Amino acid sequence: MYRTNTCGELRLSDAGKKVTLAGWVQRSRKMGGMTFVDLRDRYGITQLVFNEEADAELCALANKLGREYCIQVEGTVNERQSKNNKIPTGDIEIIADKLYILSQSATPPFTIEDNTDGGDDIRMKYRYLDLRRPCVRHNLELRHRMTILIRNFLDSKDFIEVETPILIGSTPEGARDFVVPSRMNPGQFYALPQSPQTLKQLLMVSGFDRYFQIAKCFRDEDLRADRQPEFTQIDCEMSFVDQDDVIDLFEDMARHLFKEVRGVELPAKLQQMTWHEAMRRFGSDKPDLRFGMEFVELMDELKGTGEFAVFNDAEYIGGICAPGCASYTRKQLDQLADFVKKPQVGAKGLVWIKVNEDGTTKSSIDKFYTPEVFAKVVEKAEAKPGDLILILSGDKANKTRTQLCSLRLEMADRLGLKDKNKFECLWIVDFPLFEWSDEEQRLMATHHPFTMPNPDDIPLLDEHPERVRAKAYDFVCNGIEVGGGSLRIHDGQLQEKMFKILGFTPERAMAQFGFLINAFKYGAPPHAGLAFGLDRFVSIMAGLDSIRDCIAFPKNNSGRDVMLEAPSELDDKQLKELQISVDVNQENAE
Amino acid sequence: MYRTNTCGELRLSDAGKKVTLAGWVQRSRKMGGMTFVDLRDRYGITQLVFNEEADAELCALANKLGREYCIQVEGTVNERQSKNNKIPTGDIEIIADKLYILSQSATPPFTIEDNTDGGDDIRMKYRYLDLRRPCVRHNLELRHRMTILIRNFLDSKDFIEVETPILIGSTPEGARDFVVPSRMNPGQFYALPQSPQTLKQLLMVSGFDRYFQIAKCFRDEDLRADRQPEFTQIDCEMSFVDQDDVIDLFEDMARHLFKEVRGVELPAKLQQMTWHEAMRRFGSDKPDLRFGMEFVELMDELKGTGEFAVFNDAEYIGGICAPGCASYTRKQLDQLADFVKKPQVGAKGLVWIKVNEDGTTKSSIDKFYTPEVFAKVVEKAEAKPGDLILILSGDKANKTRTQLCSLRLEMADRLGLKDKNKFECLWIVDFPLFEWSDEEQRLMATHHPFTMPNPDDIPLLDEHPERVRAKAYDFVCNGIEVGGGSLRIHDGQLQEKMFKILGFTPERAMAQFGFLINAFKYGAPPHAGLAFGLDRFVSIMAGLDSIRDCIAFPKNNSGRDVMLEAPSELDDKQLKELQISVDVNQENAE
Repeated sequence: MYRTNTCGELRLSDAGKKVTLAGWVQRSRKMGGMTFVDLRDRYGITQLVFNEEADAELCALANKLGREYCIQVEGTVNERQSKNNKIPTGDIEIIADKLYILSQSATPPFTIEDNTDGGDDIRMKYRYLDLRRPCVRHNLELRHRMTILIRNFLDSKDFIEVETPILIGSTPEGARDFVVPSRMNPGQFYALPQSPQTLKQLLMVSGFDRYFQIAKCFRDEDLRADRQPEFTQIDCEMSFVDQDDVIDLFEDMARHLFKEVRGVELPAKLQQMTWHEAMRRFGSDKPDLRFGMEFVELMDELKGTGEFAVFNDAEYIGGICAPGCASYTRKQLDQLADFVKKPQVGAKGLVWIKVNEDGTTKSSIDKFYTPEVFAKVVEKAEAKPGDLILILSGDKANKTRTQLCSLRLEMADRLGLKDKNKFECLWIVDFPLFEWSDEEQRLMATHHPFTMPNPDDIPLLDEHPERVRAKAYDFVCNGIEVGGGSLRIHDGQLQEKMFKILGFTPERAMAQFGFLINAFKYGAPPHAGLAFGLDRFVSIMAGLDSIRDCIAFPKNNSGRDVMLEAPSELDDKQLKELQISVDVNQENAE
Repeated sequence: MYRTNTCGELRLSDAGKKVTLAGWVQRSRKMGGMTFVDLRDRYGITQLVFNEEADAELCALANKLGREYCIQVEGTVNERQSKNNKIPTGDIEIIADKLYILSQSATPPFTIEDNTDGGDDIRMKYRYLDLRRPCVRHNLELRHRMTILIRNFLDSKDFIEVETPILIGSTPEGARDFVVPSRMNPGQFYALPQSPQTLKQLLMVSGFDRYFQIAKCFRDEDLRADRQPEFTQIDCEMSFVDQDDVIDLFEDMARHLFKEVRGVELPAKLQQMTWHEAMRRFGSDKPDLRFGMEFVELMDELKGTGEFAVFNDAEYIGGICAPGCASYTRKQLDQLADFVKKPQVGAKGLVWIKVNEDGTTKSSIDKFYTPEVFAKVVEKAEAKPGDLILILSGDKANKTRTQLCSLRLEMADRLGLKDKNKFECLWIVDFPLFEWSDEEQRLMATHHPFTMPNPDDIPLLDEHPERVRAKAYDFVCNGIEVGGGSLRIHDGQLQEKMFKILGFTPERAMAQFGFLINAFKYGAPPHAGLAFGLDRFVSIMAGLDSIRDCIAFPKNNSGRDVMLEAPSELDDKQLKELQISVDVNQENAE
């Protein structure tokens, strides 16, 4: 037997016991004829003691142990003289009498400690060593714990987990598919699912009533820090329900998770905010409510009340009040102006108004307005002496609001307002059903083509589709869209109309979604669902900055697994069997 | 609200309650001014009653309902006059006073009942309707229940579920990979995992100690009835364990599952049979122990004791005794002879000996042997009057045993001995580490290249690798290999030796498994694991003939999803983005 106990298990009450432990050498040190080794495994750290006087040979072997050697030790549990109250095993040590080296270790390329000296790249290449660091492993333990809680919660609510296939058909709508050439069907390709959306709707047609799946999903999109080519979704669907049923049930699930995992009690009823309100007050469909700095619309105060042409031409003028920031230096203000002009923010410029201690103001646009105008702005913004009002304007209201949202989040960062131990959750509802795509020059489904329009707005579908609200809802926590879903269309005719508005010819709709259109001919039930992003949910719970840290083997921004060295080139034999050839444009490749 | 109760919920104690139900019309019938409708949902069936006298209009609407219409009904729970004790809701009915058609249904292409008139093809095309049949849905409910039980069992044993990636690197060893062209890395491909084998070993190197995952796996092999291109594995790995630790733990898991799911108590300790014994007694490494008909070796009795050249040249002669089959007609015996000559069995011919009621014998080879020889055979086979001894011979013992195994299973089918409610589980141990591949003309790993040789046999590795036993074990139930695993090599040098024996150059080993070879340099722990085939496990528990019946959306024998019409051709735009082209050989394609 390799061990009688784990390295996190023994206590003072075990003193005197003969035990066998196995694990890794965290560190070792010699002190006055004794060698102390910290032995680590998943469950903790236990101190081993080798006494030179008692067994010189054994102690000599112990002195040869390097960091990360994998060893087995037999010995006796002993009360420690100098206790370590930082670890649960800190009251005891093991007086070793046997030592076996199970495998040696080369010197690791970085230290296996929470505060490591390894950079991102080397830690990814040696991910198997990075995962030895307790802080990294804890994220994956938390992920496991969350999925167990989620599954048991949903099981208790009569949900059935159904595995849907990974090799499905390609649907060019939406994001780009990953595809898989079929050897048995030459010239044809499977696609990996972007989500099990249509399949879960089919399960509702099948009468499964309540479905869930913790499902792998795939999108071949250009990657950003918080995106991975494969990601995991808590995917759910219910029949014979309305919006409030879905919201209530998954709010309960979130409440259960926050309670069990973080000991946090969410409010008895979460706030529901319309998309329009969220845009107006926070310039975002995923507002971060951990802090204030709500938008103040300043059209009445600043448009046409002075000589500043930018404001006089604007369709929207809005600001935020940054508390206590009137002391910002010219340099700091320039930094903020540079920030809003970055391409990813896109504003043309920044206007600021400092509220002095005496209540007077100083502004970057002093010369265009009278002090009375500034006084009105200060009043509207409820700014206090010492505050800084930051103002953006533009010719498209929501575009400008989005820019102001970036500024609000930047100020929250600077002011340290993004408390990782605070969780502000809410639902965003009443999304627009469509959004205009400048790129495609057509209306696109805000969520997907299966989203139910608000019944009150159905008369608007023909003439004013852009004004139609969706029966859709997002679960937002700390400014992150953790989940989202909608009521689905279950009426074939309405679904056809949706496809038409989205620019599908009937032929194309049938080619892509024929199975769903056909299924709806056989008594489709009213149904609705939602999906939570598991990676995001875990990273919020764990207080992580990136979803990568809660994924065992993540890919980098080029979609590469640098440890596995994947993707890689194929043998000619493999290509031949698949009857495809690689056609890399040399110019592009260089 | 769409419903106050499900269709499986109401009882006599609910009589008088106003309720709302929703579901599908299973059937309806008119009887003396009343219309009765059976309303079905996932939870059961409830009878609705529409009274023409009470509300003619409502009853007229009810009369319009077709099968599979999706409806909502309000009414009052009433005690039934003629109770139906076959269903839990059979004591009550709902006197309907409101009826809403939620969606109409076209006539389904087959009847939505356990005994359907739909053939395989049409049911696969309309799988969403097939899944409405309670018998099909029950398989998926069982699957869900099993995964919940498995996860909670493993969680209670400190296993952590870790998701490993689906987009990994291609490893041409083993079965054929499915591959995925990478748009961001033109000319390069990901592969879909055949199993998370190497990744779970890395997690052991990382100190995860106990890992599991209910994992999707992919193999691009030609399909058979019991194979799917994607399948699901209960994948497990443990550190600091020996073979018995793994066997004990997963035997406990199986015991737990059989008890909870089927109410079956497995023996306190399952039988362990060596591979050699299993081959000798049953001609299979997955013997079906629900019935006897063990092999009887007849070399002493039949080789050289008569004039039958086939036996005199044979390296192996063996038989089974089919109880009570002496009455088989010439036609039946010819059928058996044809059976063993089928290409998938491959025997050259069949010899039979009937034991007459008076103890004398009649045989297909009477002219070659004396009655005394047959008497010895009868004695060895412990055949009784009325039994039929069936004998095969050949020049390779194990090949002949495999043929005899097919015959044994065929006879069990004919005799109705494969009881689906009986579960005979055992472990097969001491597999050969290698097997010779005629196709590749080299030794192949019986399991995979990471399997630990039996330490006692390591000295044989150089000279007699074919005699080396593996530290490997299979879990077999009712003649099906449900699970299998092994101790893994954790010593880099031994692993290198294995690669060498398997014909890998050091360069190729590094190119394919460099990450694992490197990982083993940093203190790899002793580890072992196993994987159960979830699809097979569920199908055994559910008494199914094919794994397809416990998969929501299975593929056919050409790897096609006929419902989704996948795989399919891609747009040129998609191919261009991926920088690949289709290269179908027209001759092949025709």
